[in-house]
Amino acid sequence: MFYGSRFRRGVARRSANRRSQLNPRQIRGAKSERLVLSQETHGPFETYDLGDFELEEGGAIRGLKLAYATFGTLSPEKDNAILFPSWYSGSNKIVEQAYVGPGRALDPSKYFIILVNQIGNGLSSSPSNTPSPFNAASFPRVRIGDDVRAQHRLIVEKFGIEKLALVLGISMGAQQTYDWAVRFPDALARAAPIAGTAKGTSHNALLVETFIEAITSDPAWDGGWYANQALVHRGLRRHARVFATSGFTQDLYNLGVYRKLGFSSRDDFLTGFVENAFLPQDPNNLILLLRKWRDFDVSRLSGGDLKSALSRIKAKTFVIAIEEDVFFPLKDIAADQKLVPNSELKLLSSVWGHLALFGVDPFYNERIDAHLKELLSA
Amino acid sequence: MFYGSRFRRGVARRSANRRSQLNPRQIRGAKSERLVLSQETHGPFETYDLGDFELEEGGAIRGLKLAYATFGTLSPEKDNAILFPSWYSGSNKIVEQAYVGPGRALDPSKYFIILVNQIGNGLSSSPSNTPSPFNAASFPRVRIGDDVRAQHRLIVEKFGIEKLALVLGISMGAQQTYDWAVRFPDALARAAPIAGTAKGTSHNALLVETFIEAITSDPAWDGGWYANQALVHRGLRRHARVFATSGFTQDLYNLGVYRKLGFSSRDDFLTGFVENAFLPQDPNNLILLLRKWRDFDVSRLSGGDLKSALSRIKAKTFVIAIEEDVFFPLKDIAADQKLVPNSELKLLSSVWGHLALFGVDPFYNERIDAHLKELLSA
Repeated sequence: MFYGSRFRRGVARRSANRRSQLNPRQIRGAKSERLVLSQETHGPFETYDLGDFELEEGGAIRGLKLAYATFGTLSPEKDNAILFPSWYSGSNKIVEQAYVGPGRALDPSKYFIILVNQIGNGLSSSPSNTPSPFNAASFPRVRIGDDVRAQHRLIVEKFGIEKLALVLGISMGAQQTYDWAVRFPDALARAAPIAGTAKGTSHNALLVETFIEAITSDPAWDGGWYANQALVHRGLRRHARVFATSGFTQDLYNLGVYRKLGFSSRDDFLTGFVENAFLPQDPNNLILLLRKWRDFDVSRLSGGDLKSALSRIKAKTFVIAIEEDVFFPLKDIAADQKLVPNSELKLLSSVWGHLALFGVDPFYNERIDAHLKELLSA
Repeated sequence: MFYGSRFRRGVARRSANRRSQLNPRQIRGAKSERLVLSQETHGPFETYDLGDFELEEGGAIRGLKLAYATFGTLSPEKDNAILFPSWYSGSNKIVEQAYVGPGRALDPSKYFIILVNQIGNGLSSSPSNTPSPFNAASFPRVRIGDDVRAQHRLIVEKFGIEKLALVLGISMGAQQTYDWAVRFPDALARAAPIAGTAKGTSHNALLVETFIEAITSDPAWDGGWYANQALVHRGLRRHARVFATSGFTQDLYNLGVYRKLGFSSRDDFLTGFVENAFLPQDPNNLILLLRKWRDFDVSRLSGGDLKSALSRIKAKTFVIAIEEDVFFPLKDIAADQKLVPNSELKLLSSVWGHLALFGVDPFYNERIDAHLKELLSA
């Protein structure tokens, strides 16, 4: 989750080399401001125009644009490319800040790293940046599979890459990783779905529905036809709190772990960190992403048979779980892993739970890098 | 949670002897109807008028009435009395249905069982049944300690009981049990706080705040001045879903355990069971109860020192936890138990989690009875 640039912009400007390290003071000092989805806040990024793009659920996106950022150099053999799609409400920028850098597993001196923004996140084609009449609530319904088909065209058409060295992703990015590995089994050598499942559970779908309802129950939502996203701030705040209550660990609150980011109380953290992260976002974008999250099921590629779908995977796969994660519990992730050939289950532990993906826990960062380095050297 | 009479009325009428067994067909066939807080739906119950009753937070309830039901006969020595206060949104009726009966631990042929309704539940004095001007949003703020002081007067003044054989309660009832054992250590021989803590955790308070906000965010809530509780049905439905998402186990949904109650799908269960249970309730009553839940902290009786407060307990105590409970996790309950002299930690397991307290799981019912029989014979 979470765009990172509003918290980190100052840091990134001062020192490009330090951009993989989160700075609690920057987070604490962050002011809620209108999210400007620009090169200044999330760049440098590029866009690739796929033209009219037909969608799984029918309809099409006219002139679908994928926004992406690259790091490092593609080798002449084109065998060192890594694809990392964004997670719920995140952009290429936070992924870069939390995972890419010298000495990290995703080291630009070794790999050509492509961070791609999923459809609907506000940088790639989204309800918020599409001209009328297909804007806002009239933006068509998108599935994870649409993202993956579009990303595949980007990889092939733009870069001429036939086989990626690694596809990895976290949370909704793990959903995209599973879809990649099943849909295009020969197009990736390795896969690392992290803190996500191949098929949503019933409880997970219910959880996501409470997030959707938290926004749409705001009268200012107005069926998605609000004049300005800031008008829906009550719904966005409610969404933030329901999200933080159910998704982060109980110990984060009970042990006051939020103090490590410089917050003085639970409410200080909820308002200054979680509400602050969601308040600048576009409600239609979030709803689109949440529906993608809720409805993902890789077994659709195999007539509803999950075992059959996952058996198609040829990539060497590390299925990675955060033990304390409430959104995507270890039990559910482990059940998926058993169905993936040539896979291993790797565990991470963090008192931050799902929030660890944001890069806030140095121990998590070290462990995830160790797993990814092992996978990349396999 | 949950009043039981709307589901069970037909059963209870047909056979008083079968009233301790839940009937899934009755639950499935339940229709949402306006809760009538009457002798017909929740009786027989009696009321005890305590006159003007001053509250911990200031102010008073004019003519505080406690509604209660009794079963069995008080022994001449007055040493066989058991007190069982109600839980969140429940009444004496569901407690009776789920826990009292021949052959059960709480057997009316052996014990004099007093099921008391907590203040604000709609049967005892509540925002919904208090005349203007102290009705609705103007009902004063109540704490668990107010309940316990009022219940103590009921026990002494009405029944002349000096020492209860057992005080037990579940969830918010466990909070009342802890308060009883610390506040009146010589007034009970045994205590059984079940699925509740002596002091709310930070996360638990946050969870409860999302329940409150789910109701108060409904424009029809109108600051508590709705003309009719049914107008707030959107908030009550939202409350029901947030409650069910965070409070019941993930397996309840993922394994489709709700089918055991005759529901065909997740939504069928959420609407037919959970929304149906909360829709007839009064929003001001629920908010009052939720604030009591959120703010309970038995260490207030000892200047904020939890260890000191719990060390006052003289009762033989079984601290009982449901292992799968998300509302009151085992870890938190076990931490309390370590501070209670002469206590034992007893575990229950149910795929229903916190919902097991409702009596829906025969295995849970059997195990809780075994623990309570052991405690009562100690």
